[in-house]
Amino acid sequence: MKAIQVGLLGIGTVGTGVFQVLQRNQEEIRRRAGVGIEVRAVAARNLARAQAIVAASPVGAGVKVTADARELIRDPQIDIVVELIGGYDTARTLVLEAIAAGKHVVTANKALLAVHGAEIFAAARAQGVIVAFEAAVAGGIPIIKALREGLTANRIQWIAGIINGTTNFILSEMRDKGLDFDAVLQEAQRLGYAEADPTFDIEGIDAAHKATIMAAIAYGIPVQFDKAYTEGITQLAAQDIRYAEQLGYRIKLLGISKRTDHPDASGKPTGGIELRVHPTLIPAKRLIANVEGAMNAVVVNGDAVGTTLYYGKGAGAEPTASAVVADLVDIVRLRAADPQHHVPYLAFQPDSLSNLPVLPMSEVVTSYYLRLRVADQAGVLAQVTRILADADISIDALLQREADEVGGEGVQGVPQTDLIMLTHEAREGTMNGVLAKLQALPTVLAPIVRIRKEELA
Amino acid sequence: MKAIQVGLLGIGTVGTGVFQVLQRNQEEIRRRAGVGIEVRAVAARNLARAQAIVAASPVGAGVKVTADARELIRDPQIDIVVELIGGYDTARTLVLEAIAAGKHVVTANKALLAVHGAEIFAAARAQGVIVAFEAAVAGGIPIIKALREGLTANRIQWIAGIINGTTNFILSEMRDKGLDFDAVLQEAQRLGYAEADPTFDIEGIDAAHKATIMAAIAYGIPVQFDKAYTEGITQLAAQDIRYAEQLGYRIKLLGISKRTDHPDASGKPTGGIELRVHPTLIPAKRLIANVEGAMNAVVVNGDAVGTTLYYGKGAGAEPTASAVVADLVDIVRLRAADPQHHVPYLAFQPDSLSNLPVLPMSEVVTSYYLRLRVADQAGVLAQVTRILADADISIDALLQREADEVGGEGVQGVPQTDLIMLTHEAREGTMNGVLAKLQALPTVLAPIVRIRKEELA
Repeated sequence: MKAIQVGLLGIGTVGTGVFQVLQRNQEEIRRRAGVGIEVRAVAARNLARAQAIVAASPVGAGVKVTADARELIRDPQIDIVVELIGGYDTARTLVLEAIAAGKHVVTANKALLAVHGAEIFAAARAQGVIVAFEAAVAGGIPIIKALREGLTANRIQWIAGIINGTTNFILSEMRDKGLDFDAVLQEAQRLGYAEADPTFDIEGIDAAHKATIMAAIAYGIPVQFDKAYTEGITQLAAQDIRYAEQLGYRIKLLGISKRTDHPDASGKPTGGIELRVHPTLIPAKRLIANVEGAMNAVVVNGDAVGTTLYYGKGAGAEPTASAVVADLVDIVRLRAADPQHHVPYLAFQPDSLSNLPVLPMSEVVTSYYLRLRVADQAGVLAQVTRILADADISIDALLQREADEVGGEGVQGVPQTDLIMLTHEAREGTMNGVLAKLQALPTVLAPIVRIRKEELA
Repeated sequence: MKAIQVGLLGIGTVGTGVFQVLQRNQEEIRRRAGVGIEVRAVAARNLARAQAIVAASPVGAGVKVTADARELIRDPQIDIVVELIGGYDTARTLVLEAIAAGKHVVTANKALLAVHGAEIFAAARAQGVIVAFEAAVAGGIPIIKALREGLTANRIQWIAGIINGTTNFILSEMRDKGLDFDAVLQEAQRLGYAEADPTFDIEGIDAAHKATIMAAIAYGIPVQFDKAYTEGITQLAAQDIRYAEQLGYRIKLLGISKRTDHPDASGKPTGGIELRVHPTLIPAKRLIANVEGAMNAVVVNGDAVGTTLYYGKGAGAEPTASAVVADLVDIVRLRAADPQHHVPYLAFQPDSLSNLPVLPMSEVVTSYYLRLRVADQAGVLAQVTRILADADISIDALLQREADEVGGEGVQGVPQTDLIMLTHEAREGTMNGVLAKLQALPTVLAPIVRIRKEELA
């Protein structure tokens, strides 16, 4: 049978990886798919660079290189278009055009799907084509397949993932070396683990894109990135990582989603989905707490299966290509089948999506790590604990670190000490009120540090 | 659309779990599958017990209970037969009859597939029906799906899994409490973690069934359980777990398969597959070394994706039901599709299986932990290391533990000491020869302990 023809939009790191993997493992892939898969054409803005990359590939000989993405999309020989451009606008336009031309689409573009997913999946459904995106979340780890197909028996309860390698590398280094964020970021940039403009990674936006996509698949809700709460790691201090350690916790940047029905401030149950990215204390003994460096891991809790974990490389040319090519094989298998046999884009039938709301951050219920720099004088602890008790927030653990351990006398010349507390669960809205009151105390001498905590049990 | 009708052969722990999950999550499953899934009939030898279980279920009302499995198989209303009997013979007969009757089949029976897989898949192929078996390996962890579909881009290099919960529970307890095997086995039986006859678990047979199935899928070879090397944990001593710990390792019962092309004794490259189950030292810092209690985890290394890990509950009513029901949803989706759209039973097209041999254990190459109880006298270490050096086996680490640490003067009244060594890689055949020579030394006073070691990097 004639090999299936693929067109690549964009030829950067991942595109080169796709080339390599399709060439090196062509026999292995054909033995699985029952038919070969070949790259027929590559479209790239920088034509000379693309030509050089293709020419250097052992399978580059027959490959057309063009600066005109639409020429590739219109090519009737091409069955599947692989979008590896990244970004929102051009990618959106070209993916919609490929769908309109009746092509199946594979994309690694989490930003695109988190923001424009609803539009793209609706268009694909109307055309009866597949849009596959395993590579968009956690690189080579087949987490989309696990969620969409492997755990279909389950009512998913929660997901928590280390889904951004750059920030996990930075946090691992901060912990290992006791350094603050800024110092480690520079090292990460030098080593190529962080980009020159690292905003998307360190502010948690990339992780929020991925958490948004996983939440849609897990709970059967539309993709709605605008509802995700996003907090990065730029404010993290080495001493909080150290204190967390002393309390038996590690700090990781997690993408979290959770099905919940806690009562809101008025006592009304708020059935909904929490969707949030922020630094999180997790017990050091959990497997995911021991995921170091640029590695990714996702923990999924389902009501039947219990807690499962998926671990691997979340980025890089070949791990990402592994996911892209797996999608190609899936499409090769189902391309000629009736669309009713396809797996639904977001795991649930498009007419069965739920209107469970994504809750505002103020309705999230979690526990907290708090660090207060306070005046070292009698009665301060009583003031602080009284404010917490009045809000019905109980304290789970308390550390006090003397001034000499945290830098001696403060700027105001007052003897200072650090109060470190772990709280039991509370509504974020309630905690915000408590923090405002605590911050207003004259004995609280610096901005309060608040880091959320999850047990992941 | 009318709900898909399922028949259960056998109604024990897993069957009850399947009932529960299909009932509790019926709406969630229908939203994903696009159609409902209902149990129409149950066949069980002990009719009264089955009737009681079905009657106790909230979805039991319309379910037929019969002692006649063939009545269920012949029922034209039943689309999918779920085999949950276990064992080889009856299960084989009934699965083949169900296939002959044109039913799709879901089975959790690893023993059946590891031994009779070739016959069953050939029959299913001739009939164009699906045989799905996610529940046969690692319970609720979707590892079969990851290997068959998620990693199709990869040439799989090796797999190493904790795929038997009973033995992992026993090893965790031995390590935590410093107890020997026999004591912990009794505790495990009391707690229900080990069966009254635990042979299949503790002798590694169950793990070998699962490793055999994963090897077939990973490397595109037929299932061939008779070629698997199987060694259990009954001989493990607490002191070896302790010494391993001092050297930075944990001991786990692993199911291992590996693509290899080491030279054999005559220097000829032996392209083939290693397939083996045995207690294994692994570096304590690896994620899988920290999988405790009855949990399962499988590490898969592919040439594109690198190292990935899958973790979760490997047994139990609902985790196993999670896998069974996921298979049901996959079948519901593809039941009316042309068989060419199905995923191949063993991941590779049936006409593309490889004849790569499973290597005899003597051709396996690995590194070793050795413990020798020796006479505590001058020259013994020189004798021992000379024999290893003559066979070109180099030593990576050496511990000596004095007699007072290991029980004082020996039975022969000779002062004794323990020599603990980690070796670099060697052929198992070579190591067997070396061990015979060492054992023959008059200064070696007890049977030598040999445990294999894998870095899993």
